[in-house]
Amino acid sequence: MLLGKVVGTVVASRKEEELVGFKFLLVKEVSTDLKETGSSVVAADAVGAGIGELVMYAQGSSARQTSLTKDRPVDAVIMAIVDSFDVDGELKYEKYSAT
Amino acid sequence: MLLGKVVGTVVASRKEEELVGFKFLLVKEVSTDLKETGSSVVAADAVGAGIGELVMYAQGSSARQTSLTKDRPVDAVIMAIVDSFDVDGELKYEKYSAT
Amino acid sequence: MLLGKVVGTVVASRKEEELVGFKFLLVKEVSTDLKETGSSVVAADAVGAGIGELVMYAQGSSARQTSLTKDRPVDAVIMAIVDSFDVDGELKYEKYSAT
Amino acid sequence: MLLGKVVGTVVASRKEEELVGFKFLLVKEVSTDLKETGSSVVAADAVGAGIGELVMYAQGSSARQTSLTKDRPVDAVIMAIVDSFDVDGELKYEKYSAT
Amino acid sequence: MLLGKVVGTVVASRKEEELVGFKFLLVKEVSTDLKETGSSVVAADAVGAGIGELVMYAQGSSARQTSLTKDRPVDAVIMAIVDSFDVDGELKYEKYSAT
Repeated sequence: MLLGKVVGTVVASRKEEELVGFKFLLVKEVSTDLKETGSSVVAADAVGAGIGELVMYAQGSSARQTSLTKDRPVDAVIMAIVDSFDVDGELKYEKYSAT
Repeated sequence: MLLGKVVGTVVASRKEEELVGFKFLLVKEVSTDLKETGSSVVAADAVGAGIGELVMYAQGSSARQTSLTKDRPVDAVIMAIVDSFDVDGELKYEKYSAT
Repeated sequence: MLLGKVVGTVVASRKEEELVGFKFLLVKEVSTDLKETGSSVVAADAVGAGIGELVMYAQGSSARQTSLTKDRPVDAVIMAIVDSFDVDGELKYEKYSAT
Repeated sequence: MLLGKVVGTVVASRKEEELVGFKFLLVKEVSTDLKETGSSVVAADAVGAGIGELVMYAQGSSARQTSLTKDRPVDAVIMAIVDSFDVDGELKYEKYSAT
Repeated sequence: MLLGKVVGTVVASRKEEELVGFKFLLVKEVSTDLKETGSSVVAADAVGAGIGELVMYAQGSSARQTSLTKDRPVDAVIMAIVDSFDVDGELKYEKYSAT
């Protein structure tokens, strides 16, 4: 999977019928230092992700292995909302910081 | 899926027989700010897209999950025509603007 | 699929037995303005393409959906010989020009 | 497979249910001279890899062929911990050097 | 498939059990003018390739279609040893040159 940031929503009323019912989010890939790589995808949402959230998304045939996307013509799916991650022992990202 | 702009049609009379009957469109990938990324594909059309339209297209094995492309040797399919999308709360694209 | 130009042939006598009988062609990917992208593949030929011809080729699992390549360990196949294509209403390529 | 270096862990409590139970590691791809390529993935761990270790990871549908990941929506898996590798007859990496 | 040059061997004693028994070779991708593209993979060897040899390798699910790799979690396989190839009618590579 790749790390990505949800940046928006895509609306498409005219679509392949197998896609009806999915929510499509625009996801920008980010690197391990949270910089945008320049790559982006339109992904189906399997976890109720919101704009601005850091997520993990799968691509290719693996994107069809969720209960939501089974046998659907979907090649990118948001699989998880990232709580935190660290790089070389240093906390790089934490969703909820203590106050 | 990726965002792309339909820019043309490809005609090929001599082809693998499993491809007969498809309409092949030339699609240039665009980024979330609607700039061309430099990448392009020849995609089968599952939704009746026209030249100049912004579309979502799937690649790889997922491209064979539509009723149209089931078990066909197709690795890129136009899945939807984009009505609108937003990035960071700002409307970036709208197909029909009000007058 | 991608647009490519057939530039040569690859000869390999020692190979995985499932590959015996295929003709392998060297294909350079070209962009929609017919410039080489710098990427190239060795593709099985499903349509009798010749050196210099502009073709459409599929990659990945879709390359195993032709009658020729069914269940064979082939990840790139030439699917069609391009007659012509246009970009933004302008004819960019035509195989046979009138005299 | 690709060579990568495990650099961290990703925590995600809200995720697609098929992902529950996996440990997700952040892996940076490295080239044959052990330099980072700039590409990174979040991979499921099939071998108990630790931070700092050099590993081999698989992507795409092959990532679903381990006993751990069978039919799970996982598109990247750490498959092996590299002991050593050589390039052009020269030892480039050795996990345990003699003392 | 892609053209590559075998440059080394990877040793990994701790690995996913489905990988036991494979020989893993380090392969650098080369372009049609035999220059390294900068991309490299760790590939299972299906043909007994040696260091320095020019090979064709498959990636993705096609890498699991050889008798050796059937249903194994392998995403790159050396499929053939290249004897020769030509580009635009010119012989670019020949394994055994006459003396």
